[in-house]
Amino acid sequence: MAEDQEEIEGLIALMARLPGLGPRSARRAVLQLIKKRGQLLVPLADSMRRVAETARECLRCGNVGTADICSICLSEKRGTGELCVVEDVADLWAMERAGVFKGRYHVLGGVLSALDAVGPEELRIPRLAERVREEAITEVILALNATVDGQTTAHYIADQLEDMGVKITSLAQGVPVGGELDYLDDGTIGAALRARKTF
Amino acid sequence: MAEDQEEIEGLIALMARLPGLGPRSARRAVLQLIKKRGQLLVPLADSMRRVAETARECLRCGNVGTADICSICLSEKRGTGELCVVEDVADLWAMERAGVFKGRYHVLGGVLSALDAVGPEELRIPRLAERVREEAITEVILALNATVDGQTTAHYIADQLEDMGVKITSLAQGVPVGGELDYLDDGTIGAALRARKTF
Repeated sequence: MAEDQEEIEGLIALMARLPGLGPRSARRAVLQLIKKRGQLLVPLADSMRRVAETARECLRCGNVGTADICSICLSEKRGTGELCVVEDVADLWAMERAGVFKGRYHVLGGVLSALDAVGPEELRIPRLAERVREEAITEVILALNATVDGQTTAHYIADQLEDMGVKITSLAQGVPVGGELDYLDDGTIGAALRARKTF
Repeated sequence: MAEDQEEIEGLIALMARLPGLGPRSARRAVLQLIKKRGQLLVPLADSMRRVAETARECLRCGNVGTADICSICLSEKRGTGELCVVEDVADLWAMERAGVFKGRYHVLGGVLSALDAVGPEELRIPRLAERVREEAITEVILALNATVDGQTTAHYIADQLEDMGVKITSLAQGVPVGGELDYLDDGTIGAALRARKTF
């Protein structure tokens, strides 16, 4: 690419590092941005700058927002004694979109992984035990992903909290709503069968 | 979404307007950006700001760069008398990636469209005739998309340039390299058959 396009190529290279955009779609996106300079490119640059300055993790649960303590942790209504442990902020937001959980969250910030050298200290696991003690938690719901690392982490946490007199539960496994058996993997069908209930 | 996440929600909404990103992938992208604040979010905001300030269209061909006249138009080597007419800057870049065309370009900035009220004056069509006259052009290659609007525009341009003594060609239509007949539409197979050549 010619030297008079270095700046633009640089932007394309940065955009291509976003999840969901490859080099080709990054190029399309940048051309679109340049076309819509006033409506899109400038507001986006400003918004990114503001988010870079203001975004922070909630000191209590790890949710991402612009306050030191997020609105979920501050809400009186959500002090139900139920604490939902999730891997990532995206999972917390997914739970919130579903709108069925009325307690508070604890974001681990990842899962234990021997391969990636992620131990309990790299995650918010020690902080979880502290919160259970301090916040009159009665039930810890392990809403970790149904992956090997996710389940390993769930077992580790369950071990850690065993003697604290708190109820520990995990999300049910089974057929997803709207799911067709023919398209499900064997593991899910097995889990759904084992956890079958009276109709 | 809570009021302490307004800023972040705003950024997600802007990102979701990029081609290739929906609301879900925009959310994932923004969380990734916040995680990689120093390596990705801040550089991206800065780069967007710089591109917003410096990006411009080449006054001659319409290519996007940071100079008044782009490096392709300025290159002595590319004064071959061949002018390739494309719809959009993305098409120019695609031709350049292919690396087979050694002449210069003319970006129309769209195609004629009665539905969208795009006439010749909205595109860089009058400028094309001027360039053919001024730049000793011997061949105009119409590299417009093989869509109805693209081909209408190609015919319109051919009519306009008819009396100027310039050779007018268009890209060949046929089976794409690596293409399988079974997956091709009837129009392409018909075009390839009509344009068949001695083996």
